[in-house]
Amino acid sequence: MTRLHLGYTGAPLDKADHMRRDAAAIQAARMHPSARFLILDDLKPLMAEGGTDLFWARRSEIPTGLAIFLGLNADGEPRFAVDGKPDDDLPARATDARAAGALLADGRAAIIAQARSVLDWHRRHGFCANCGAPTEVQKAGYSRLCGSCGAEHFPRVDPVVIMLAEKDGLALVGRGPRFPAGFFSALAGFVEPGESLEEAVARELHEEAGIRVHGVRYGASQPWPFPSSLMMGAFATAEGFELALDESEIAEARWVSREEVRAALAGEADWKAPPPLAIAHWLLATWAGRP
Amino acid sequence: MTRLHLGYTGAPLDKADHMRRDAAAIQAARMHPSARFLILDDLKPLMAEGGTDLFWARRSEIPTGLAIFLGLNADGEPRFAVDGKPDDDLPARATDARAAGALLADGRAAIIAQARSVLDWHRRHGFCANCGAPTEVQKAGYSRLCGSCGAEHFPRVDPVVIMLAEKDGLALVGRGPRFPAGFFSALAGFVEPGESLEEAVARELHEEAGIRVHGVRYGASQPWPFPSSLMMGAFATAEGFELALDESEIAEARWVSREEVRAALAGEADWKAPPPLAIAHWLLATWAGRP
Repeated sequence: MTRLHLGYTGAPLDKADHMRRDAAAIQAARMHPSARFLILDDLKPLMAEGGTDLFWARRSEIPTGLAIFLGLNADGEPRFAVDGKPDDDLPARATDARAAGALLADGRAAIIAQARSVLDWHRRHGFCANCGAPTEVQKAGYSRLCGSCGAEHFPRVDPVVIMLAEKDGLALVGRGPRFPAGFFSALAGFVEPGESLEEAVARELHEEAGIRVHGVRYGASQPWPFPSSLMMGAFATAEGFELALDESEIAEARWVSREEVRAALAGEADWKAPPPLAIAHWLLATWAGRP
Repeated sequence: MTRLHLGYTGAPLDKADHMRRDAAAIQAARMHPSARFLILDDLKPLMAEGGTDLFWARRSEIPTGLAIFLGLNADGEPRFAVDGKPDDDLPARATDARAAGALLADGRAAIIAQARSVLDWHRRHGFCANCGAPTEVQKAGYSRLCGSCGAEHFPRVDPVVIMLAEKDGLALVGRGPRFPAGFFSALAGFVEPGESLEEAVARELHEEAGIRVHGVRYGASQPWPFPSSLMMGAFATAEGFELALDESEIAEARWVSREEVRAALAGEADWKAPPPLAIAHWLLATWAGRP
């Protein structure tokens, strides 16, 4: 059994963190002839026509807008992301970030995740939460500094737990109120201040489905750039089957067998499982065993 | 071997999330005769005199200041945290949150973690990052709403990886530039947008110590309320011993044997290991095996 690729992981870039603190190095990298830029048009990355690769623009092709440093490729060439409206005549198309991630299905999608999360954060964090004054971009896009009160702000990453509760060969899947019809997935929720990942799994399953669990086992993780989650997948053992749904979070839930999960992953069930891009797919496939 | 308790985990409260959305229920809980309040004086929780338990104030004893809902205890009695200056005549003492966590050494410390992280967030997030206008507390303290642009903001939790790289029976520990003399711990760093937990472990070890690793294994997690981290402990296999330290992050590092780690945890080595409150202690103790 080959290991399933986790969506948005496997970035091929060296983030070269030490360069971020060196404004002259970043400026030199930006002006270097080998520099290339991933343009995000309203947070949609540009894909080359045909849709099989990212479109990497030259400096002369980029629009006005915030540029953040992504890192260096395997040849040491600098890569940036730019938030702006591209020229119509580029041989490229702005593509929904989920669709682009699914089309690439490899480490290149991780570049989209990094670019989209950081640029989106800048869009919504132009002011200082501490004093209300405008802030300025620092460190090649990895910080904003308030000139008024001196507070420094960093791009946010929100830890999220996503989990399969299981008991006696059955696992719990649910459908959110805004999910497409027939679509079921693993339950999920944000980790709160003052709890561990394992406690968040147990709390969310109790809040959303009314079940108690023990034996929480971490499985894998992925970034999810909508806007900037770190999804952490886990398994847990349920103490009973009886559900009490929080209908604001879960419209419908069911206990499914491994056979049913395998059928759903193969597109042969009366319900739809999440696509390979999402860690919920990994959780279900890992739990059910792939044929 | 009993399982080591992870600091700040095991909260005995039911967070009763559904009540947060119900302002009338929160108000009734606050006025209920069984309601009790943990006062934090400049983010230091009040401990009862003698220092063996938290001090739970009655409503008549609390200072003016923001109160957030913590949850319900096992008897369904409401518990809150208040940010304010307590009366001098209370039989209680404001205690450093690390010291208080170490003194309690059980699930009661998790209450401090929740209270301190959320109250600290409010202190530093009175304004809307999106538009700069003042925001207002919502949902019993779990959200702030901007009346000007409508943006809703949630308490932040920052995922952090903390890890032991190991090779041939040796593990890597390091000393930060601001650590007390002789104190070594596991290396750590913030997860960035667009990477998995496992990728963050590998990136941080490369950035800070110059080593490459594979086979990252998640171990355990804990909340760390300074100000609001989710610490995720992991192990990884190093590909070589040669170090190249980033001296802004690591002043000194060394490869240590299991025997040396056991000696340090017992206070019998020429270097000091982290205290039981910190997950780095769990990582070292789990790796070295306790006698």
